[in-house]
Amino acid sequence: MKGFKYYTPTEVRFGKDTELKAGEMLKKYGATRVLVHYGSDRIVENGLLGKILKTLDENGIAHTELGGVVPNPRLSKVREGIELAKEFGADFLFGVGGGSVLDSLKAIGYGLANEGDVWDFYEHTRKPEASMPIGFVLTLSATGSVMSDSSVITNEDGWKKRGCNSDLCRPKFALMNPELTMTVNPYQTASGSADIMMHTMERYFNRLGSMEITDSIAEGLLKVVMKNTKKVLEDPTDYNARAEIMWCEALSHNGLTGCGTDGGDWSCHRLEHELGGLYDVAHGAGLCAIWGTWARMVCDDLPDRFYKFAVNVMDVEPDKDEMKVIYEGIRRMEEFFRSIGMPTDIKGLGVVPTGEELHLLAEKCAAATGGHIGSALTLYEEDMYRIYKDAVDRSEDK
Amino acid sequence: MKGFKYYTPTEVRFGKDTELKAGEMLKKYGATRVLVHYGSDRIVENGLLGKILKTLDENGIAHTELGGVVPNPRLSKVREGIELAKEFGADFLFGVGGGSVLDSLKAIGYGLANEGDVWDFYEHTRKPEASMPIGFVLTLSATGSVMSDSSVITNEDGWKKRGCNSDLCRPKFALMNPELTMTVNPYQTASGSADIMMHTMERYFNRLGSMEITDSIAEGLLKVVMKNTKKVLEDPTDYNARAEIMWCEALSHNGLTGCGTDGGDWSCHRLEHELGGLYDVAHGAGLCAIWGTWARMVCDDLPDRFYKFAVNVMDVEPDKDEMKVIYEGIRRMEEFFRSIGMPTDIKGLGVVPTGEELHLLAEKCAAATGGHIGSALTLYEEDMYRIYKDAVDRSEDK
Repeated sequence: MKGFKYYTPTEVRFGKDTELKAGEMLKKYGATRVLVHYGSDRIVENGLLGKILKTLDENGIAHTELGGVVPNPRLSKVREGIELAKEFGADFLFGVGGGSVLDSLKAIGYGLANEGDVWDFYEHTRKPEASMPIGFVLTLSATGSVMSDSSVITNEDGWKKRGCNSDLCRPKFALMNPELTMTVNPYQTASGSADIMMHTMERYFNRLGSMEITDSIAEGLLKVVMKNTKKVLEDPTDYNARAEIMWCEALSHNGLTGCGTDGGDWSCHRLEHELGGLYDVAHGAGLCAIWGTWARMVCDDLPDRFYKFAVNVMDVEPDKDEMKVIYEGIRRMEEFFRSIGMPTDIKGLGVVPTGEELHLLAEKCAAATGGHIGSALTLYEEDMYRIYKDAVDRSEDK
Repeated sequence: MKGFKYYTPTEVRFGKDTELKAGEMLKKYGATRVLVHYGSDRIVENGLLGKILKTLDENGIAHTELGGVVPNPRLSKVREGIELAKEFGADFLFGVGGGSVLDSLKAIGYGLANEGDVWDFYEHTRKPEASMPIGFVLTLSATGSVMSDSSVITNEDGWKKRGCNSDLCRPKFALMNPELTMTVNPYQTASGSADIMMHTMERYFNRLGSMEITDSIAEGLLKVVMKNTKKVLEDPTDYNARAEIMWCEALSHNGLTGCGTDGGDWSCHRLEHELGGLYDVAHGAGLCAIWGTWARMVCDDLPDRFYKFAVNVMDVEPDKDEMKVIYEGIRRMEEFFRSIGMPTDIKGLGVVPTGEELHLLAEKCAAATGGHIGSALTLYEEDMYRIYKDAVDRSEDK
């Protein structure tokens, strides 16, 4: 067991109509002039944004809006947000949407509160020393950005997808109404659940031990997400199932599922970032396309954790033949991904990288990570290449 | 499932030597003049307090000390702390010890930051509007005060034990080194574990539903605490087991195990508060002395939850005869309490209340709670009396 820091200051209001607390919460946290950030015009057209902005008006809070955030949110939009917030004199940042909007907002916060170019923080050539206060209404259960210290931005110049982690960007408050996720389509719902699960699995598969309470929470969370994802795909308006997934989203990435570990492996995330940067695929789907290949490569080196996972999460019968249990656990996880419409190879993302692109992906991943990734097993550029290559077409494993 | 608020802003540093971060953390949070609160002189004699104060000196933080906090912490000590902190001009409160020291510190914070008599907040005639920032080094795993919104104080005038809940008092930071709990004696260790478990059980047994993820976390936490309490009673220096219990302490009472519930039942806590106020018994032990009697009285009215508890926590074999499973679950819980040296009746606390005292306990409990307690089953003064009476001697159930 490792020592750890645990810090989740975000005030969460969870349940029906909580988005209507936006004005009240902004006022409570001292906001007077607010940049309101969002993604597609869907929330303008369906009236959600208007309803929320009305609560700002009622609380005497001035606001200016910036929409147009896309999945794998872009640096150019971040720069636009920084300029707009400066001109407007914003003292608080507020967003409505999924993790892409929030990650963009976090980057705007860094850009406003620090001198110099905001991209430096994503290239890790400098660390942010301040941020802006952030409030958020979540409409998509996926990235767990809502309570996390993480923000991931894609720079169109070179299509680099890079993350910056700092406690400074954890939101002051988050309003989480599961009803707002009911209109998310099946593919994005499933991709979101995969992302939620991977935030726990990345922490679960680590070399330096864990805690029993952390494992127990992690294993329970994975089972709850799997069960309830099946439910919402059958009935998208199942409030309780949407709520289970939404709350798991926050808990999976706020640090709770990593207490006592060394922080986790994160290889799949690192590998996916390059896929997302180059091909603009849905993040959760990209993770599913990589995971099985990664798991088969590293499970020999971490048999205890993969065995525990197979038995406690995937309900594989314990057996003396440890590797049989482990491979069955991996097989069942992939089977689950496919059952919710997720791909388990890169081809399933609708992309077939050329040989040159496979080398480029590995090169970019190595360059972004100082040459190696992973704690379950340390992977170097040739291993990254091997995973990308093996993950292209795995139809024989299905 | 109910909507909920979740707010756990306390920055936790968990692991070996974290107590030596005291000065650094106080500085980070802007402290310059600090009241240092503690309990027995044991931490002076064994050098712990000195080591910690050295880190304050190294960070240029002025401090004055006030020891002598006792279990079921007293209002007179709170008043002494308020006076001392005022004279000293303290801008931050800091403590070393268990939940009693922290609860006393929280009360001092209310007294300093609000006009009027601090006891008003515990009598619920007024609500606190402010508090003082608090940092803490935990040396006993029990009350969960370390991340909670709760403070419980005993007024010697009438021996009333009353609680005040407010987010204002959640500590800014907590330093949790499991090694510091290794010298806690077996009875206090067991009593602490019982308290930790009861914070989850009070939330678990409620009428208005829960969430699957909350139940999963709660059930896992109870099993982890039971298993590791047995371990530390066998080997008090088992670091990992001490760590599991310590982290469960914080999670059990920071709100996590109540998300999606109606807040919980809390009857046993309310009933125990009067026992603690009148007879000064260890809080966890007092809860154990009440729980079985309470559970048998209310389980008929909440069979689904008691059945789930029996099967998922106490490993009772599922059976068509629901009440058989439920009673076996209760029996096993009481058996566990006894196995760690906890009483399962009031006599076991070394106290045999007279008939008059039983009425007084029920009267005081009703007076303190507006006449009724509980959400599993609403209990009125005559029910309270009945539980106290039935709980005096339960040797026939063992």
